[in-house]
Amino acid sequence: MDLNADLGESFGAWTLGDDAAMLQVVTSANVACGFHAGDPLTLRRVCAQAADAGVAIGAQVSYRDLAGFGRRFLDAAPDELAADVLYQLGALDGLARVAGTRVRYVKPHGALYNAVVAHEEQAAAVVSAVAAYDRSLPVLGLPGSAFLRLAGEAGLPTVAEAFADRAYTPAGTLVPRRQPGAVLTDAGEIARRCVAMAAGEPVTDVDGGPLVLAPDSICVHGDTPGAVAIAREVRAALTGAGVALAPFA
Amino acid sequence: MDLNADLGESFGAWTLGDDAAMLQVVTSANVACGFHAGDPLTLRRVCAQAADAGVAIGAQVSYRDLAGFGRRFLDAAPDELAADVLYQLGALDGLARVAGTRVRYVKPHGALYNAVVAHEEQAAAVVSAVAAYDRSLPVLGLPGSAFLRLAGEAGLPTVAEAFADRAYTPAGTLVPRRQPGAVLTDAGEIARRCVAMAAGEPVTDVDGGPLVLAPDSICVHGDTPGAVAIAREVRAALTGAGVALAPFA
Amino acid sequence: MDLNADLGESFGAWTLGDDAAMLQVVTSANVACGFHAGDPLTLRRVCAQAADAGVAIGAQVSYRDLAGFGRRFLDAAPDELAADVLYQLGALDGLARVAGTRVRYVKPHGALYNAVVAHEEQAAAVVSAVAAYDRSLPVLGLPGSAFLRLAGEAGLPTVAEAFADRAYTPAGTLVPRRQPGAVLTDAGEIARRCVAMAAGEPVTDVDGGPLVLAPDSICVHGDTPGAVAIAREVRAALTGAGVALAPFA
Amino acid sequence: MDLNADLGESFGAWTLGDDAAMLQVVTSANVACGFHAGDPLTLRRVCAQAADAGVAIGAQVSYRDLAGFGRRFLDAAPDELAADVLYQLGALDGLARVAGTRVRYVKPHGALYNAVVAHEEQAAAVVSAVAAYDRSLPVLGLPGSAFLRLAGEAGLPTVAEAFADRAYTPAGTLVPRRQPGAVLTDAGEIARRCVAMAAGEPVTDVDGGPLVLAPDSICVHGDTPGAVAIAREVRAALTGAGVALAPFA
Repeated sequence: MDLNADLGESFGAWTLGDDAAMLQVVTSANVACGFHAGDPLTLRRVCAQAADAGVAIGAQVSYRDLAGFGRRFLDAAPDELAADVLYQLGALDGLARVAGTRVRYVKPHGALYNAVVAHEEQAAAVVSAVAAYDRSLPVLGLPGSAFLRLAGEAGLPTVAEAFADRAYTPAGTLVPRRQPGAVLTDAGEIARRCVAMAAGEPVTDVDGGPLVLAPDSICVHGDTPGAVAIAREVRAALTGAGVALAPFA
Repeated sequence: MDLNADLGESFGAWTLGDDAAMLQVVTSANVACGFHAGDPLTLRRVCAQAADAGVAIGAQVSYRDLAGFGRRFLDAAPDELAADVLYQLGALDGLARVAGTRVRYVKPHGALYNAVVAHEEQAAAVVSAVAAYDRSLPVLGLPGSAFLRLAGEAGLPTVAEAFADRAYTPAGTLVPRRQPGAVLTDAGEIARRCVAMAAGEPVTDVDGGPLVLAPDSICVHGDTPGAVAIAREVRAALTGAGVALAPFA
Repeated sequence: MDLNADLGESFGAWTLGDDAAMLQVVTSANVACGFHAGDPLTLRRVCAQAADAGVAIGAQVSYRDLAGFGRRFLDAAPDELAADVLYQLGALDGLARVAGTRVRYVKPHGALYNAVVAHEEQAAAVVSAVAAYDRSLPVLGLPGSAFLRLAGEAGLPTVAEAFADRAYTPAGTLVPRRQPGAVLTDAGEIARRCVAMAAGEPVTDVDGGPLVLAPDSICVHGDTPGAVAIAREVRAALTGAGVALAPFA
Repeated sequence: MDLNADLGESFGAWTLGDDAAMLQVVTSANVACGFHAGDPLTLRRVCAQAADAGVAIGAQVSYRDLAGFGRRFLDAAPDELAADVLYQLGALDGLARVAGTRVRYVKPHGALYNAVVAHEEQAAAVVSAVAAYDRSLPVLGLPGSAFLRLAGEAGLPTVAEAFADRAYTPAGTLVPRRQPGAVLTDAGEIARRCVAMAAGEPVTDVDGGPLVLAPDSICVHGDTPGAVAIAREVRAALTGAGVALAPFA
């Protein structure tokens, strides 16, 4: 099983998350690419640390929106968006190569992640950019999304993820954040759900029924001290249950 | 002989220069990398056009200063500057690779170009970035600059350029722009000087004496309609004199 | 009658439009505020020129999107958007005051202009910002828009504009730009329509029927040489028809 | 005596400092203006909180350098810098007015603060901007700086500050940060020095001799949890010594 989290999201004088701590927990790092977060010096350091830790580097591409941290939908035209993705991907790949490794996958960030679930044009734009850059580069996304479907049609390897701390509907979609119970906070429960996911066993959906999620990767959060502790507990529970952790890429 | 010019310096709705026209004149394009100019879609297009035209792509790396077009000295720390250069270089190289080619050289832009003539720390930072990225990548700069000296010491190929439309002192340095006569405007005179440079013959320095410049590349400007016409005349004069034009890289 | 146009949309090294020429044509200048265009030095100069020419200055507030020139919808939260509008409004007003005048009205730019036609939350956010800043400040917008309706409900003076060079449906809405005939290009026809609008007489809608538009202001474009010529012809036709031109504010 | 500190230096998703805590300590808040830090929503909130707390708002104007947090010298031309200062000043003043107060003074930030100690052209540019905006607006700076001298010559009220936690040379200048002992960290010692400064009594300079600083305002830092505690101890010591704390403006 693979554990992924967002890293490299500091910017200049502003620090976000504890990259060094999370690199001891995850197997894949979704590294910011400068458009929503991540100044080049931070990115260079994170790439070097990830390479040292044996953690796979993914390009966490985003809308160009530092002020909004990439969390606001931006109605970018497909050709603009594709070029923005290529620019970010190349920039991070250069830093990864200097660190002795390379970008192993692409995961859209924030509002772009959400947009490409259903926005066919933007999903196609991101897919076209990744395919133009390297057709062997996997993309990480939401099962059932337009993004993963179009990526598959374009011949890109696709990696489906589940969220460690999010509640799911019986249909297997995420409970919207604004609904009560959408985000789980009990570390033990979160860890147990991750073990079940890794074993292919059902977790409990928001209505109490069984739901089988069979992710290729589990996303944990790391941008708060509490989140790091949860991520550590997830890792401990998985390894305790005999689940081997390794990058999917 | 190689002819280089700055391209890809539009940004979003703002157009600067006539990239398509200049790509018919030059053999090497110093393509902006997004920090002083050059949105990703513009850069992608210029890379594709350059590849089609057989023009070599160079990374025109800059301080992060869109509002100042990279023309203002910025006292960036060496590790920040090196990371900024790597980020820009990787970004443009990604776009060049998608266009079927790659970045063939690096040329600092504007205030960074001027700074690395004498600013040892910033010159060393740029050199370290290029060397970390690809030790076979040539750098283009001013003869006698700290930049070319340190690049040479680091084992990078160095390419010395002369300016088609600038007056030189007897010592071979540029007459500062604020002095009268610093910038030549007569197309015929500019073209004749370029032919002399290419032949290894002397040009007239600002004091009227002979000065031999033996550049590896001649820089022409292309950001005004008049500049395009001058660049065309330079090219015509060189080819008319039997000078073969080809990228140095 | 008032004639308005967008000005101050250069940024650093990039020039857009001919502000000096347009200030001889219009009576109200929608001056950019730095978020989609307009570096502070440009804005200061335009404010001074507008004050000299007796042209009223409006704050052309925008999404924070230099790369997209404010032409891309951005899903900003209402409190963010309101603060962004206030920031821009205060910045331009400061520059206008230094020029001996002040901001006389507010007009949203580009995608924000389009969004607040129907996006109630964003329209309310812009209205709340203007009302918080100065409840006597008029807002300029599209007749029938949520923006003008909410502004009126909030007690702000509202100014309805018509577009000199756009075709209208029989319902008085704009023909979408992607449809043929949406944008008029014949200067004589455009000028005649403006004279009719100013006289309260009907213009011809896209289906050939009569349509009475009774705008408080007519918007002309100025960002191309051709547009300046059209704007001049509109002005000449209006003054020739005895229509007095003056700022509404 | 006045206590000032930097506030409003968060940006979007990135938080810096504890503005609410510091507003209970200081009497003057140097509020960022968006060029080195401070998104408009943060600034609007800080202005409202400062107004509620009776803390005077100062405009902490900066170079345009989010990535460098305004800590890097930027060789901006005087007219550009003056326009940048006016833009920031107007923007913050608008937000302050909406909060029921206004900007009461101007203090340059970071590298600009350091530059205007000796850089006559940039100092004159900042002074000209403040004077153009409001000739009654005080400027806060370093005693002996070109900035305060030129401001005085221009008729602006000047306010000299001392730093609570910095060592001074016998000549009354700051010990450079890179020298050992340049920054004091013992809260008790810092508080005692502030009490001495407020009483007009000497503090100990870096060589052990007595040095009388007679500041109009004392600058405390608030961007770390430890700094908040020190600032609280300074305030408690001053009030315990019978020093009345109030904004200078």
